[in-house]
Amino acid sequence: MAEIETPVESYLAAGRERRIATFGDFLRIPSVSADPAFAADVHRAAEWLGERLRTAGLDHVDVSETGGHPMVYADWLGAAGAPTVVVYGHYDVQPPDPLAEWTSPPFEPAVVGHRILARGASDDKSNISIFIEAVQALLATRGRLPVNLRFVFEGEEEAGSEHLEEWLEANRERLGGDIAIISDVGFFEGNLPALTIALRGIMSAEITVTGPFQDVHSGVYGGAIANPVNALATIIAALKGPDGRIRIPGFYDDVVPLSDDDRAAYAALPFDDDAYREFLGVPELVGEAGHTTLERKSGRPTLDINGIWGGYQGEGGKTIIPGRAGAKLTCRLVPDQDPGRIFEGLKAFIEEIAPPGVRVRVEPQGGGHPIRSSIDHWAVDAAAKALEDTFGRPPLFIREGGSIPFVATFEQALGLPVVLMGFMPPDGNFHAPNEWMDLDNFEAGIRAVIRVFDGFAASAP
Amino acid sequence: MAEIETPVESYLAAGRERRIATFGDFLRIPSVSADPAFAADVHRAAEWLGERLRTAGLDHVDVSETGGHPMVYADWLGAAGAPTVVVYGHYDVQPPDPLAEWTSPPFEPAVVGHRILARGASDDKSNISIFIEAVQALLATRGRLPVNLRFVFEGEEEAGSEHLEEWLEANRERLGGDIAIISDVGFFEGNLPALTIALRGIMSAEITVTGPFQDVHSGVYGGAIANPVNALATIIAALKGPDGRIRIPGFYDDVVPLSDDDRAAYAALPFDDDAYREFLGVPELVGEAGHTTLERKSGRPTLDINGIWGGYQGEGGKTIIPGRAGAKLTCRLVPDQDPGRIFEGLKAFIEEIAPPGVRVRVEPQGGGHPIRSSIDHWAVDAAAKALEDTFGRPPLFIREGGSIPFVATFEQALGLPVVLMGFMPPDGNFHAPNEWMDLDNFEAGIRAVIRVFDGFAASAP
Repeated sequence: MAEIETPVESYLAAGRERRIATFGDFLRIPSVSADPAFAADVHRAAEWLGERLRTAGLDHVDVSETGGHPMVYADWLGAAGAPTVVVYGHYDVQPPDPLAEWTSPPFEPAVVGHRILARGASDDKSNISIFIEAVQALLATRGRLPVNLRFVFEGEEEAGSEHLEEWLEANRERLGGDIAIISDVGFFEGNLPALTIALRGIMSAEITVTGPFQDVHSGVYGGAIANPVNALATIIAALKGPDGRIRIPGFYDDVVPLSDDDRAAYAALPFDDDAYREFLGVPELVGEAGHTTLERKSGRPTLDINGIWGGYQGEGGKTIIPGRAGAKLTCRLVPDQDPGRIFEGLKAFIEEIAPPGVRVRVEPQGGGHPIRSSIDHWAVDAAAKALEDTFGRPPLFIREGGSIPFVATFEQALGLPVVLMGFMPPDGNFHAPNEWMDLDNFEAGIRAVIRVFDGFAASAP
Repeated sequence: MAEIETPVESYLAAGRERRIATFGDFLRIPSVSADPAFAADVHRAAEWLGERLRTAGLDHVDVSETGGHPMVYADWLGAAGAPTVVVYGHYDVQPPDPLAEWTSPPFEPAVVGHRILARGASDDKSNISIFIEAVQALLATRGRLPVNLRFVFEGEEEAGSEHLEEWLEANRERLGGDIAIISDVGFFEGNLPALTIALRGIMSAEITVTGPFQDVHSGVYGGAIANPVNALATIIAALKGPDGRIRIPGFYDDVVPLSDDDRAAYAALPFDDDAYREFLGVPELVGEAGHTTLERKSGRPTLDINGIWGGYQGEGGKTIIPGRAGAKLTCRLVPDQDPGRIFEGLKAFIEEIAPPGVRVRVEPQGGGHPIRSSIDHWAVDAAAKALEDTFGRPPLFIREGGSIPFVATFEQALGLPVVLMGFMPPDGNFHAPNEWMDLDNFEAGIRAVIRVFDGFAASAP
């Protein structure tokens, strides 16, 4: 990577070991937001992060309660006349299951070559840490930042961001600025630097099917009553056709079709279907008919079961008709689908097709709107140049298949233009066993962030 | 219940507390055969049972290793000229899951009114215990039994009876006799005394669907690849039609249709669909079109998922495409379906309909043939009279929906006529939480068994 000016580069060159150690301390806190069993750990991560921000030299640091997990806010506002940048990240992580598939314990960071393995190593503790290290290096060497800065770090991103809007409403004065950087994204396939220009939305739901009052003997009662697992399978199977199209009536009504330009942009990205298929270990890439893999994985909506359960899962057999069964489901949404409308459509459709003899409940589990950013903005130009100067090639402009409900809030409610920039490796096993961060991306990312801040200061109108 | 002759009745009247305590000791041993974690407990149950048989006064008691769980054999052969009766039961039990639904721990027997709650309280430790208590009472009061007796108690009935045939082959000389009583059955709905004249067979299989190399992020990869849970649901949904008919080609080819006489016999049984539906807590009784509930639950074949799993089952959400999913499946079979042929049909059909983009494996988990007994036999007459004399009403002749693969072996391989008799309450929650035995059935059952033995001695040709 290209070096930056001497005092900062010297400071950074001397501190790599300390940075990995600090990052490891952060990763060791199991801040799993979705599981109440980890609530105290999430709180501990917030406190740790507050202390870390003070050490880095931020002026005002505030760890505030929300009714759920804390929000961590910090700012440095000493750059009179320079633009103000709001940086968002999240310090909570996904549950670590299935534990048996980790090669090292998920909350005992392990450095293997240029990788560090741990839950949260990429998503999203890497990006948070990169920004904090950049700020610390600048304050330690220059004594000031080129821009005014507000950090907003959330603790519920992986659990539906339940209390975020309320906190934003109550803290509007802390969110004034010129530009927002949402740093919960990463690089493109092949670890190529990228700026994200679109995110899918999300609609989460849980389906519960209830049959007999409890598990009952499948010999004694088999044939007399509906089986909740069979019924749940019938429901799930009806949600998608063999052409990969989702069969919920009205599901595609609000989808803005990909334009010829969109499809040309997708086609221009360097992407190898065969290598991707081999990496994932699947016999075939499949999905909605009429679209390329890249289009399907970020430009088109999806419906996936995230988990299913019912009856006996242990060793050997247990000849029962389960008393109940359930599944967690998410749809990824694209502009202009609305998570609320999609949920209502799903619920109505399931109630219509539910087989007789069971009771079916469909409950919402949160959602977020899809977003699409403009690339015609001075901040995007400055960020692109910073990435090119750091990584030696211009960033790709990509659509991301994941969802950050917060982005729509920033854009719409706060009126801030958003740059989606982060440093996760594209195959970093986010939400999966053996999540990892590329430590070279980490180190280069710190330089890139410094260049972004310098670029913003130089190019803001 | 009607009393029997004074010395035996007096002996029994004085021993009820001791019998419940002994039964409780048996129930406290968690002899779960399907789960390897309980192997030592199953062994302990066999040793306990051997000791119990010695205490009861049996002559030759043998706990023999099989490569799996032990077989317990005991005999008393001192009734020269009288018929020889082979009595089968099993001392292993189903897994106790789901543990949270038990009102008391499954292996701490709890007496509530006339019920005793524990895993195995009815299926099948009750029947074994009733027979042993009857023998003990007879030997203690008369000094002899009216018939020659061989007990064969299995430890793998709930796990596929893997080593039974091998043991039978090696112990043929111990199984000579005139009649076999299979005591792994019970009473009809309403707790009405019954003799079972048919059992369904069973075919067990496990389906595994594999997608990406591990759980992956549903945003990043959603749309690009098939989801193993969605694929598994598609497979399961295709196995049965909305008319309740199983769609595996050839599935019904060998089914002997119910005759007019069969259907008339079903129609004559006292059975209330509404009460049954209410007991089970389901909105509707459903199954194969064109058949009554009673016909469906014992006279027609079934296909039920016993368990399903895949992805995240914890609190909150986890936005993943699971790396794999699986399900356990059983079919109950009727004459003349063959479990091997049914498995092959299932496997071929699943391989044919499996959606693209995943790998599917279908593995056999054991099976047993359906059986249908004749009711024209002196032993059946004697058993029916014994039940009528004990319970004050003639037994119903019923078909049972459950499966005892052993019965076909007894009938075919050993050439023994079989009487299917037992005392479990029909709603005893076998294979389910809060399994229980009716202690009145238990006490009356002891008298009934004594009358059966006396009746066999009096009526054998």
